[in-house]
Amino acid sequence: MATAPSVSYSMTIRLEVPAGGAAVSQLTTAVESSGGSVIGLDVTASGHERLRIDVTIAASSTAHADEIVAKLREVEGIAIGKVSDRTFLMHLGGKIEMASKHPIRNRDDLSMIYTPGVARVCTQIAANPEDARRLTIKRNSVAVVTDGSAVLGLGNIGPKAALPVMEGKAALFKRFAGIDAWPLCLDTQDTDAIVEIVKAVAPGFAGINLEDISAPRCFEIEARLREALDIPVFHDDQHGTAIVVLAALTNALRVVGKHIEDVRVVMSGAGAAGTAILKLLLAAGVKHAVVADIHGVVHSGRADLVDAAPDSPLCWIADNTNPEGVTGTLKQAVVGADVFIGVSAPDVLGAEDVAAMAEGAIVFALANPDPEVDPAVARRTAAVVATGRSDFPNQINNVLVFPGVFRGLLDAQSRTVNEEMMLAAARALADVVHEDELNANYVIPSVFNDRVAGAVAGAVREAVIEAGESVTTTTMP
Amino acid sequence: MATAPSVSYSMTIRLEVPAGGAAVSQLTTAVESSGGSVIGLDVTASGHERLRIDVTIAASSTAHADEIVAKLREVEGIAIGKVSDRTFLMHLGGKIEMASKHPIRNRDDLSMIYTPGVARVCTQIAANPEDARRLTIKRNSVAVVTDGSAVLGLGNIGPKAALPVMEGKAALFKRFAGIDAWPLCLDTQDTDAIVEIVKAVAPGFAGINLEDISAPRCFEIEARLREALDIPVFHDDQHGTAIVVLAALTNALRVVGKHIEDVRVVMSGAGAAGTAILKLLLAAGVKHAVVADIHGVVHSGRADLVDAAPDSPLCWIADNTNPEGVTGTLKQAVVGADVFIGVSAPDVLGAEDVAAMAEGAIVFALANPDPEVDPAVARRTAAVVATGRSDFPNQINNVLVFPGVFRGLLDAQSRTVNEEMMLAAARALADVVHEDELNANYVIPSVFNDRVAGAVAGAVREAVIEAGESVTTTTMP
Repeated sequence: MATAPSVSYSMTIRLEVPAGGAAVSQLTTAVESSGGSVIGLDVTASGHERLRIDVTIAASSTAHADEIVAKLREVEGIAIGKVSDRTFLMHLGGKIEMASKHPIRNRDDLSMIYTPGVARVCTQIAANPEDARRLTIKRNSVAVVTDGSAVLGLGNIGPKAALPVMEGKAALFKRFAGIDAWPLCLDTQDTDAIVEIVKAVAPGFAGINLEDISAPRCFEIEARLREALDIPVFHDDQHGTAIVVLAALTNALRVVGKHIEDVRVVMSGAGAAGTAILKLLLAAGVKHAVVADIHGVVHSGRADLVDAAPDSPLCWIADNTNPEGVTGTLKQAVVGADVFIGVSAPDVLGAEDVAAMAEGAIVFALANPDPEVDPAVARRTAAVVATGRSDFPNQINNVLVFPGVFRGLLDAQSRTVNEEMMLAAARALADVVHEDELNANYVIPSVFNDRVAGAVAGAVREAVIEAGESVTTTTMP
Repeated sequence: MATAPSVSYSMTIRLEVPAGGAAVSQLTTAVESSGGSVIGLDVTASGHERLRIDVTIAASSTAHADEIVAKLREVEGIAIGKVSDRTFLMHLGGKIEMASKHPIRNRDDLSMIYTPGVARVCTQIAANPEDARRLTIKRNSVAVVTDGSAVLGLGNIGPKAALPVMEGKAALFKRFAGIDAWPLCLDTQDTDAIVEIVKAVAPGFAGINLEDISAPRCFEIEARLREALDIPVFHDDQHGTAIVVLAALTNALRVVGKHIEDVRVVMSGAGAAGTAILKLLLAAGVKHAVVADIHGVVHSGRADLVDAAPDSPLCWIADNTNPEGVTGTLKQAVVGADVFIGVSAPDVLGAEDVAAMAEGAIVFALANPDPEVDPAVARRTAAVVATGRSDFPNQINNVLVFPGVFRGLLDAQSRTVNEEMMLAAARALADVVHEDELNANYVIPSVFNDRVAGAVAGAVREAVIEAGESVTTTTMP
């Protein structure tokens, strides 16, 4: 699949050209003949003989960007100046900051925000620790915690290299849900240490968002933290993904007129996301699920499972799926299936595999950036296709979920997050797409749909209260 | 010492009075006859018969505020409505927030701030980890770390109750030095655990500010973290205080015309602040120092020191002070002394003790809120008096130091903070007071003096570069 030019590979090139003549129009031609797009062109200084121009272009990769610059150098009379990568420019010095809510103009302000006035607030919280949820940033803050072990598709790049993703996450929390998140990138990948650290920092936060921690450690870390803490712990790579997938599947089934209890679902991938999706689908009513990993379909008789620890994730999958005892390869399993959900690797299915699925097939090919099957190819025979990419319809994007889920949890001052709350979030997200909007190319709303976060938050908040997991704080003195 | 009304005990009282008549003027009289001050009076609604008024008053304590409200109730025709504590109102929901530096308006913004564009920035940092100091919030961020074991004068109130102080500290970091600080209030008071946690969170920060951790654990925690980390670790209660004290002493000695090498310094208090002050004074040239704690003057022959571990803080003091072998009580030691510095407890000295000091005596009575000796009493015979209080001249306030020190450390991308840097900070702070401004009531500038942070930052930055502790990052791609 060729990649289209994208602003994520965009740069601003400062250059000078002769004032008369065709150089300016040749610029655009040079960029476009190299496969790039001109996003903007500003003349920043003009004289009788020379023009200074800032031209902003989009490329499809770093190498492609270099090619475009080389092509520009060939334009007669041109002088290329500074080339600025726009994505890097946006990252200089970081993407987030801390802000004070109150001005500190004089001694009076200082004496209320800090000493001596602050001591009375401290005393109040010491007497009623739950008042920290009312009188401090704890009320609205979430720690975005990673160990850098499984960052995007980049793998184990460590805590410093993970920081730009965590900052971006924090920015999204604020943009979509008004939540104050701060990144904590940990310099350890030891499960026990991570659990102890997160437990220790918990007093200052109302929720923990685990991010980009590799499987299977992420399962144990999350489980132990949920057990230990009185604030919700949510591993977005697992549960955020699961909630969007369930919402999209709910609407895709509406499009093809099938029921979740009846469909045969084949999944590719048994990692963190795959396991979480599977569990939520089972909770939502799926009865016929089969999971395949790199060794083929998971079943309790498989060689590598016979000797596995009974509490291993793969054994859980074997025990809770595949009631018909299917064996063999992924390609064999998808024959006649109603739904394919891939969270695995590029190109594991071909056109013929999708064509062999049942009538009204649903294909979610979520490997990023390269899906399990080319979505354009899948769409030839499948009724509904979704991917993780932003350049195809039906993008499965966690940004649709985590801001609203945490907004709801924080508004309800929830002690935890559970399956009922996640199911409520998925239902609310699916229902943002109205009956008259629903079609094969629109089973999930856009991340910029401004009804999404509020709908998800409201549903989660109600589910927390319903579950009796809401903390009640004392009233204001 | 009676305490004057303060805005830190201020409240806004909503009330109604008859429109005609003398009720409004009686309000002010009632507040002032109770010893309070009227800060503001707003008529928020007016009718033919009744006025609704929001009156804001300052009291000297919570009990006093209640007395004032009781007195107001006695005014004829008055109806008291909601009474709002202004300090608590400012704390509702916390005093700080996270903000995104860039708007996220559309898909293009999202693709540069978050996926897929962010992946290139991650890859760059993975290849050159020091680039995190350039391309992430690490560049400008400080963790404000406490375990809540020694918060203000309130003692061991725990991590949640400490949070309002840490938020205030973060707000001050931003106000005075543009630094992005985030509070981490730890749910453990185990030394080993705290060291491990701070080491683990360090990748995301350019500095660690330890705060309100009790002695002697604070010494070990700081020493071990300095050894382990490649970013500066600063315990403000120790070093911030020490730097302000040295700056104020430098100028006080200028006022009385004495040299730091010649003066006899008697200190009361051998806790975290006392020990740090002592060390910095010795580094600055003090030759004759005597320290007293609750058991009297510290000397190597003292009963509790004979069997103490040789690396205990008290043994260090005995080995490095008191060359004349003074023994006995604090009151005996101050006779004839040039300088008294108290970081201990209220009222350990009387008028007669200060009178017995040398000509041109300097008294820093820093116990808060009640000093070692009433500053008004001390001033009868001492030449220069300073306290930690805001209602006397010469306030020794850490806000003068920590923002500028960290600004300098961060600007220089320092790996550490050392004694030379602290001495440079003290010299710069002292020099903010010009020769023609210097006098007994102005040995230290106001916290709102806008030259302070810049002067301190510049001196610290130079000291970092001088010491060769500045990290050099690679240049922008």
